[in-house]
Amino acid sequence: MAQLLPSALLNAIDELGKLPGVGARTAERYASFLLRADIHTSEKLAHAIAELHKGVKNCPVTFALIDVDEDVSSLYSDPDRNKQIVAVVEEPLDIVALERTGQFHGTYHVLGGAISPIDGVGPEQLHIPELLKRLVSDEVEEIIIATNASVEGESTALYLQRHIQDEGINVAMTRLARGIPVGVDLEYADQITLTHALEGRKAF
Amino acid sequence: MAQLLPSALLNAIDELGKLPGVGARTAERYASFLLRADIHTSEKLAHAIAELHKGVKNCPVTFALIDVDEDVSSLYSDPDRNKQIVAVVEEPLDIVALERTGQFHGTYHVLGGAISPIDGVGPEQLHIPELLKRLVSDEVEEIIIATNASVEGESTALYLQRHIQDEGINVAMTRLARGIPVGVDLEYADQITLTHALEGRKAF
Repeated sequence: MAQLLPSALLNAIDELGKLPGVGARTAERYASFLLRADIHTSEKLAHAIAELHKGVKNCPVTFALIDVDEDVSSLYSDPDRNKQIVAVVEEPLDIVALERTGQFHGTYHVLGGAISPIDGVGPEQLHIPELLKRLVSDEVEEIIIATNASVEGESTALYLQRHIQDEGINVAMTRLARGIPVGVDLEYADQITLTHALEGRKAF
Repeated sequence: MAQLLPSALLNAIDELGKLPGVGARTAERYASFLLRADIHTSEKLAHAIAELHKGVKNCPVTFALIDVDEDVSSLYSDPDRNKQIVAVVEEPLDIVALERTGQFHGTYHVLGGAISPIDGVGPEQLHIPELLKRLVSDEVEEIIIATNASVEGESTALYLQRHIQDEGINVAMTRLARGIPVGVDLEYADQITLTHALEGRKAF
């Protein structure tokens, strides 16, 4: 079979198909949308992607993503944020989710992933030593372990809890509550969630 | 609320969110994947998107997408393709779908869309005059109207059929069969598909 599509299009489909969860059909749809759209749409997208790495770096204290010309995350340097409370999250975007609640006024620490032997991620790949240093230097009173409710997130939470205890650091450790999410009927809740909800039940 | 993410990241999320069917969460996922991945992944993607328009043009005869340095679609110029049979499709990628069957050895004509008053697309926006010219100059014997099985595709097929008749052009006109797709249980087939399947029933 001869080449049915121009090389530039095949190449774009190929590269778009490397995005997570994007198969050949979706990549084709994206590419043909870009081709049909104004050339500026492609140019702006290409530019934004090309500039992505250059414009972003990790905060050296919290490992949140910050502008390349910032020194430290504004969520850390802001004097209104309570440095004695640290929420520990897996990924930088988890911060956005927590900030959206408007209920947290402490600071963050991004681990950079979760412990996952299958993916070859051990504790040494995560920003755990830097967390321990902060616990001491910032005289942290509470850390909220806000890892994901996945097997990896749970193992990471457990590892952190034990590791911090073993190091003899005196800090209150809490975890996000597990339970029934808003809007979910009891009959559709899975067994483990329901078990968590029972265990975590509260008095009126 | 202060800016939670670096501008370069927000910009990439914004531009990725313009792809069809990509909401804010998916755009965030794509952008954070690109940030975590090797910088070359972003560079190659950005380059492929930037070069997309430059490397692609429409075939002046069939309106298929061709390399910018080709004169005419190879599916048209190929002497093995039967120019007396023309499959009329809405979009360039429809050609790929038909070619994958390996069963069609005619040539193609891309309309560049379908008639859709809601989107402001009338017959005058489609490559219909060029199709009529081809019908005469290539002495076409059959056109297979292979528009989508959507309301717009059906209207376009009907319009084409009438328009070609009105022009007094003598050509056989056929349409792709409508019916039950392979692997679908009868009980799950919708009413219209089932009606088509009944109407189009064949003797053993």
